[in-house]
Amino acid sequence: MKAEIIAVGTELLLGQIANTNAQFLSQKLAEIGIGVYFHTVVGDNAERLMRTIELAASRSDLIIFSGGLGPTQDDLTKETVASYIGAGLVTDRVAMDRIEAFFHQRGTVMTQNNRKQALVFDRGDVFPNDTGMAPGMAAEHEGRTFVLLPGPPSELYPMVERYVMPYLINLLPERQVFHSHVLRFYGIGESALEERLLDLIEGQDNPTIAPYAKEFEVTLRITARAKTMQEAEELIAPVESEIRNRLGAYIYAEGETSLHEVLVDELAQSGRTIACAESCTGGRTASLITSVPGSSAVMRGGIVCYTNEAKHDLVGIPQEVLDSAGAISEETARLLAENIRQKLGASCGISVTGVAGPDPSEGKPVGLVYIGVAVEGLPTVVKEVRLAGSRHAIVSRAAKFALFYALQRLKKGERI
Amino acid sequence: MKAEIIAVGTELLLGQIANTNAQFLSQKLAEIGIGVYFHTVVGDNAERLMRTIELAASRSDLIIFSGGLGPTQDDLTKETVASYIGAGLVTDRVAMDRIEAFFHQRGTVMTQNNRKQALVFDRGDVFPNDTGMAPGMAAEHEGRTFVLLPGPPSELYPMVERYVMPYLINLLPERQVFHSHVLRFYGIGESALEERLLDLIEGQDNPTIAPYAKEFEVTLRITARAKTMQEAEELIAPVESEIRNRLGAYIYAEGETSLHEVLVDELAQSGRTIACAESCTGGRTASLITSVPGSSAVMRGGIVCYTNEAKHDLVGIPQEVLDSAGAISEETARLLAENIRQKLGASCGISVTGVAGPDPSEGKPVGLVYIGVAVEGLPTVVKEVRLAGSRHAIVSRAAKFALFYALQRLKKGERI
Repeated sequence: MKAEIIAVGTELLLGQIANTNAQFLSQKLAEIGIGVYFHTVVGDNAERLMRTIELAASRSDLIIFSGGLGPTQDDLTKETVASYIGAGLVTDRVAMDRIEAFFHQRGTVMTQNNRKQALVFDRGDVFPNDTGMAPGMAAEHEGRTFVLLPGPPSELYPMVERYVMPYLINLLPERQVFHSHVLRFYGIGESALEERLLDLIEGQDNPTIAPYAKEFEVTLRITARAKTMQEAEELIAPVESEIRNRLGAYIYAEGETSLHEVLVDELAQSGRTIACAESCTGGRTASLITSVPGSSAVMRGGIVCYTNEAKHDLVGIPQEVLDSAGAISEETARLLAENIRQKLGASCGISVTGVAGPDPSEGKPVGLVYIGVAVEGLPTVVKEVRLAGSRHAIVSRAAKFALFYALQRLKKGERI
Repeated sequence: MKAEIIAVGTELLLGQIANTNAQFLSQKLAEIGIGVYFHTVVGDNAERLMRTIELAASRSDLIIFSGGLGPTQDDLTKETVASYIGAGLVTDRVAMDRIEAFFHQRGTVMTQNNRKQALVFDRGDVFPNDTGMAPGMAAEHEGRTFVLLPGPPSELYPMVERYVMPYLINLLPERQVFHSHVLRFYGIGESALEERLLDLIEGQDNPTIAPYAKEFEVTLRITARAKTMQEAEELIAPVESEIRNRLGAYIYAEGETSLHEVLVDELAQSGRTIACAESCTGGRTASLITSVPGSSAVMRGGIVCYTNEAKHDLVGIPQEVLDSAGAISEETARLLAENIRQKLGASCGISVTGVAGPDPSEGKPVGLVYIGVAVEGLPTVVKEVRLAGSRHAIVSRAAKFALFYALQRLKKGERI
């Protein structure tokens, strides 16, 4: 099945927003094995939109539109597609009730043009809009499937997850279940990970194995297609097991989460608390931890000891350590982690000290970072890492390494 | 002049990346008055790319490609366009030298396929790639202009700014200069700003006035077209002056910069230092300040006093203040700012305490935030702000308010 995605909206052609809907839809279609061959963006212009529809219908089996379902004169996707496929437009009662309720709740008067949003094709399927007003819809015409979705990502994403994906899976030649496991890695780059799994990635067709790199982390999606969910799980199990055998040390979680969420969750579950002393990360580690709702139950606080005076005065690092080993050293990292833990009465103290760049410091190279983890009842550990990239990349990576090592130490209690 | 943008790359059709190049190019073209009518994404496939080129040539005067200039077999944009416009490919000496130097510097052997990257059309223009290997290029064919650019944004963006924009301005029917002033605002939302400038925005054609909202800030670009730079400046001056009259209090800088860069610069220029005590922002303020290269010269450090104990033990807030006024209060904000300044021996102390949510705290509503600014030799000021949005939005906005008020206080020395 050949698919293409058409985004309608002049704001895209003016560069006011990026076409993230096409990216999201492409990912979702790839997951269920539907190939996307083109993305097109066209403005709110009936004639150019019609030419775009004609071209798409000449080369694709599945054409997915986003945008142009709103209440204004500019919104003409529905009307133009209806005209192309010879469909009439009728009011969808559920959508109309929703729109009226929305205005009633806000205590404002509904203008007439909002009724337009409840119009849907007089044949095919309707997708409810749980987070907005204009419903989505789908209809067939001459062997092609036309799917229309609202433009705002906050409406399109949930509609796709809840209603459009089951509809599309139903379109596939054989009735199939698509099921994924997502593994989250830290401490290994995308290319190193690919290299270690190359035989699996190249050899496999079902399940497929797709690595993604984002915000200095790598995730791996293992997707199986099968007749039943159980069969899909059975296809995934041996592959996942092999991946865990090879790279288990780098896996910190499954599914949609993040290092800071997993760490806060681990602390909350075990009734423990954390505190951090940061030099080169300058507050980034604390900022990640406190970005998690409910972190106030586990976060005791932190000190950004950017100067040697602050390391000495606020975190009690002896002057002779700063003079001999230096601020960027295993010993300073160890003392920072231990002292911040005691000072704030936390179960776990973490520290980060290193060179974020752009210039070397203490004669030590850009990217050299020491991370200390002091957990109550366990010997303190310090890891030396060497990070590449910009100042921003080094700071982000170092902060995530601190979270990753703290998590490993707290979870497994073993040397890291 | 009708333009369209064609991005070439299967990774876009798989949803691995968003087509941010098209957004960037659209913004740049809009600035010089060139209308973009279509964006297309097509995979690394010669036949589909050729059909896409033919279609574009049938409807547009200017066709800009991104991607497909790399060294691999998959990279075929250059070869396909050359075949369409009947151009030969020749080695560009400057690009070849650059590529050889790159491999020499890394101490690795250059594989043969890297030579392909130095090939350019045997007519037209070449755009140097200052941040990568493959140069960009442009050529005319049957009254259409074809511009080819590399795919990585880190290469495309600087190439466009430095070389492609002057080239495109040269293509315009009348030789014109396009010149912009960018004003950066904080503390006012996009819609409130638009409302206060509605008559200017609606009434003006030259200069144009375009507001953009990004990362909880608003910027305003005033762009004039004229025969000379001086004429453009003369067109901008009265409009900018009127905008400054109306909204000057919210303007913190001009051009491409950020609140934290401007603040660090202001501190460095005046030989002063800063320290911060943060509760609800949890390290975000310190993290923004320390993200600026060179901030170590002005940043004394910070304390993330997430708990009342930390506020008391680490920043010396008296227990009776925490008990009576509360941690989220004008008084606590004032003392946090003053104490952190003294404790770290800084010229300026800033503090943030408030409710980031999702739940209220101390019976105070989500979004209520107090920001304190204590500057040596000036009375301490505390601002109460009420912020809307998610936890992430409240934290980001509060941290930026702290930077904004500190900047105003340091710069103007006046009450804020």
